Amino acid sequence: MEDRLAAAMRFAVGLAEGARGVTSPNPPVGCVVLDAAGERVGEGATRPPGGPHAEVVALAEAGARARGGTAVVTLEPCAHYGRTPPCTDALIAAGIARVVYAVADPNPVASGGARTLEGAGVSTRGGLLADEVAKGPLRAWLHAVRHGRPHVTWKYAATLDGRVAAVDGTSRWISSAVSRAEVHELRGRVDAIVVGTGTIKVDDPALTARGSGGTPGARQPLRVVVGHTDLPDTARVLDDSAETLLARTHDPAEVLAALHARGVVDVLLEGGPTLAGAFTGAGLVDRVLLYLAPALLGAGPVALGASGVSTITEAHRLAVEEVTMSGPDVRVSAVPVRD
Amino acid sequence: MEDRLAAAMRFAVGLAEGARGVTSPNPPVGCVVLDAAGERVGEGATRPPGGPHAEVVALAEAGARARGGTAVVTLEPCAHYGRTPPCTDALIAAGIARVVYAVADPNPVASGGARTLEGAGVSTRGGLLADEVAKGPLRAWLHAVRHGRPHVTWKYAATLDGRVAAVDGTSRWISSAVSRAEVHELRGRVDAIVVGTGTIKVDDPALTARGSGGTPGARQPLRVVVGHTDLPDTARVLDDSAETLLARTHDPAEVLAALHARGVVDVLLEGGPTLAGAFTGAGLVDRVLLYLAPALLGAGPVALGASGVSTITEAHRLAVEEVTMSGPDVRVSAVPVRD
Ligand SMILES: NC(=O)c1ccc[n+]([C@@H]2O[C@H](COP(=O)([O-])OP(=O)(O)OC[C@H]3O[C@@H](n4cnc5c(N)ncnc54)[C@H](OP(=O)(O)O)[C@@H]3O)[C@@H](O)[C@H]2O)c1
Ligand SMILES: NC(=O)c1ccc[n+]([C@@H]2O[C@H](COP(=O)([O-])OP(=O)(O)OC[C@H]3O[C@@H](n4cnc5c(N)ncnc54)[C@H](OP(=O)(O)O)[C@@H]3O)[C@@H](O)[C@H]2O)c1
Repeated sequence: MEDRLAAAMRFAVGLAEGARGVTSPNPPVGCVVLDAAGERVGEGATRPPGGPHAEVVALAEAGARARGGTAVVTLEPCAHYGRTPPCTDALIAAGIARVVYAVADPNPVASGGARTLEGAGVSTRGGLLADEVAKGPLRAWLHAVRHGRPHVTWKYAATLDGRVAAVDGTSRWISSAVSRAEVHELRGRVDAIVVGTGTIKVDDPALTARGSGGTPGARQPLRVVVGHTDLPDTARVLDDSAETLLARTHDPAEVLAALHARGVVDVLLEGGPTLAGAFTGAGLVDRVLLYLAPALLGAGPVALGASGVSTITEAHRLAVEEVTMSGPDVRVSAVPVRD
Repeated sequence: MEDRLAAAMRFAVGLAEGARGVTSPNPPVGCVVLDAAGERVGEGATRPPGGPHAEVVALAEAGARARGGTAVVTLEPCAHYGRTPPCTDALIAAGIARVVYAVADPNPVASGGARTLEGAGVSTRGGLLADEVAKGPLRAWLHAVRHGRPHVTWKYAATLDGRVAAVDGTSRWISSAVSRAEVHELRGRVDAIVVGTGTIKVDDPALTARGSGGTPGARQPLRVVVGHTDLPDTARVLDDSAETLLARTHDPAEVLAALHARGVVDVLLEGGPTLAGAFTGAGLVDRVLLYLAPALLGAGPVALGASGVSTITEAHRLAVEEVTMSGPDVRVSAVPVRD
């Protein structure tokens, strides 16, 4: 049975990953319902805000076979009324005998789901694959709940000598086709992409999530341009392929507060060096995602501009979380060491 | 038997690795002698110039048990008179029945060993683990034979944003203790370490190979300082812990020609950005070895200075050969893509 539960939770993690980018400000959750014999009879992921939660979707599929069964869910079910009724009510009404979840709900308003279930005679167990879920699909959402601001991933593509463009400003393509496709896929799973006016001026990027062949994805993240300079009407970021927010400030905290107020949970900071330096200096980068291209330039803008470090002991220290190959490039994910 | 041969060759590769750094201008070779029954009865590695070659050392250990046996050696045995008599003579005299080698001798003067052996009735077979040997212990030597100049590895330690020092010049320690220990180990296996006068002025490094606790290794590579500036008498690179060559030029090719004339085969270029830029621009870097430290600086000197690239299409392109962790750091080895 233990194996079945772990397998079901892994499946639920996949469902949750698939829902990333459409649920904010709600968490992307996955749920699998097993019948009394341990067979998978229902599955679901959180629908966009206003739609049903993962548990309700999975229970609807399971129908009567849920009775006496187990709900395996990536996050402790909610016990409060929001835009939808509490999931605990739905689980109890369906006759679920046991709820196994990964991560406990950190949200003071929503917590208490397990207690409510126990009170109704449903046995509960938390912590299964908790780490995998907390670092995976729920990472940004947990961060936003705990810190009251979106999670920020600074993503950049640089050469082995740290350049993000050649001395004449050209930068297409520093990283490989494989890495660029990966970035488009990533864009499709975040709530907002942030750049400075400098990047718009030099690169005129569309900042949309596009599939192979350049076709835009069904869902587009909010595009955010930070800085005081007016953009030319012809800027691609002003086209109607996605919404665009102009943040006329130099204060990264102000940008994040505005995004938080709009329900943004997961932010991809795509540079350039000036804006990345400002975010890093303010301690507002939560993850660094580097696509390191095996090339050398010897001149040109460097990935990170001034971030408040004047001597080596003040360096912003991080810990490498994962290193993988992305086609010919080395992909490094690192998180700040905060002590 | 095939398994025994491969195992013996792997052992010979280890012996060859252990001889790196002491054999130049001769190749670091390893040899294992198996008796007629396939038992390992002798082993040897190339001794410093003037001393016996690997085959002779291994045959001496095997004695009479070599008769009818197999010599497994990382490089085709030499058939010519140099400072020592030909190894083919020694193998034939010992009654070896078969010679299995990895890499064919590319040296026009020394080649023909296999033919000589066959002529004397010894069966031969080349190519066993050839790739492993060619990319491993024989890499620098093969390069030097083919190109008439030493093999150059540019090694540097940089932050995720490509800096090799903070804006005030401080750089101790960008990389971790594990990475630094690895570099000392590497220094002990090359023939020369090359830096520019700028690095001496700022860092005053000793450029010696030291073990844990700072004790200098038995063998020290030649230290080479490139540039016109006179060094202060107190510079640590001028102490008597190793030999030092002052190369008063700005031409990397001239530096390598002088080193080649001295029998240097394997060079470790340790910076700084100006000199690394000059070598890269001249196409004289054969391998890039980056210790990428999970830290961000946002200011300070960048790993590579001007190297003749003015737009992205002119970037020096490489291919990643290996990525490993070195303590908390990411170690990337890459080689130029030359087409
Ligand atoms: N390879 C990559 O991953 C990558 C990614 C992005 C960009 N790039 C390259 O980066 C270069 C552009 O660099 P960049 O640094 O100019 O781009 P940037 O950081 O996107 O934009 C800089 C602008 O942002 C505004 N800004 C916002 N907050 C600021 C603050 N706290 N301090 C100062 N200015 C702030 C300022 O504009 P206002 O004057 O309008 O206020 C500033 O000029 C281009 O060459 C581009 O190709 C490379
Ligand atoms: N993290 C690392 O891996 C690492 C390694 C080394 C250095 N560094 C850092 O790098 C900084 C020093 O940088 P650097 O660039 O001055 O050091 P450098 O490259 O070692 O030395 C530069 C000097 O070399 C001479 N030179 C030789 N060939 C030249 C050429 N083709 N063109 C121009 N000059 C040539 C010039 O001196 P003359 O005027 O005397 O001719 C020049 O000033 C320091 O902050 C140091 O900490 C870091």
